[in-house]
Amino acid sequence: MPMKTLADAFYDELRDIYHAEKQLLEALPKMAKKAGSDELRTAIEEHLAETEMQVQRLENAFTDTGKAARGKKCEGMAGLIEEGSEINGDSDADVVDAVLIAAAQKVEHYEIAAYGTLCTWADLLGYRTAKSELAKNLAEEKAADEKLSALAKNINADAQA
Amino acid sequence: MPMKTLADAFYDELRDIYHAEKQLLEALPKMAKKAGSDELRTAIEEHLAETEMQVQRLENAFTDTGKAARGKKCEGMAGLIEEGSEINGDSDADVVDAVLIAAAQKVEHYEIAAYGTLCTWADLLGYRTAKSELAKNLAEEKAADEKLSALAKNINADAQA
Repeated sequence: MPMKTLADAFYDELRDIYHAEKQLLEALPKMAKKAGSDELRTAIEEHLAETEMQVQRLENAFTDTGKAARGKKCEGMAGLIEEGSEINGDSDADVVDAVLIAAAQKVEHYEIAAYGTLCTWADLLGYRTAKSELAKNLAEEKAADEKLSALAKNINADAQA
Repeated sequence: MPMKTLADAFYDELRDIYHAEKQLLEALPKMAKKAGSDELRTAIEEHLAETEMQVQRLENAFTDTGKAARGKKCEGMAGLIEEGSEINGDSDADVVDAVLIAAAQKVEHYEIAAYGTLCTWADLLGYRTAKSELAKNLAEEKAADEKLSALAKNINADAQA
């Protein structure tokens, strides 16, 4: 992919995270089904609702660039989701939950890195609507990561008990 | 992979990051070669030296668990490295640098999430040597991410110029 300008790089990265979020819309319900803890299941379901809104915000960001909202296969997220799906139902339920949280936090960190870059680039490129929408997504991903860290405290202790 | 205990999950995650760091030992020199900015190239080369030390620390962590140091293919990191390798040499040099930083920050965030989980689990499991070694790796990855954010300021502005 030859990229002549920062606007090309921005569009490419936007297409990448758009595909990533759409993959997540399919993966999160499967993760929620595997969760043993009610709190964890609820947290995943809430994040699914947030992700639906995030996809809409990304479509608004595409509009700001004047280019079509089209996904591009995101190898990074595909790999992370593959990791999450390896969790086997034969395992101890508390351990499954601990591993689900670990996988979900990798996903959150992927998104934090991607949205961090996109916000910086949107600023430089003068995409004001895109910047505002992407900053909302970034804040939600950071909050989701912190929520998972808080949930992990009890769940990891149960897994070790 | 059935996991009966948190110790099983810890070992599995340790094997994952061990493979990830070894993949990085091969990928970082290729990224350094693509970098146009001397500062960025130096930063990548310095992180390569850190990564060699991190692999040794992971081997010490394996020793603490009493299990063999064996990697397990890390799909997440494989996907992230695949993303980094897509960067095309025909692109504008400053844009290549901006994209390299974006890819490297995704790698750092993957590692921050993985080491964060491993440190928490090592504490619960009483792996004191492993905890100390993993905490050093975590601190280095966070510092590398901050260094990249600082470098990105000038490089992104050049890419937009």
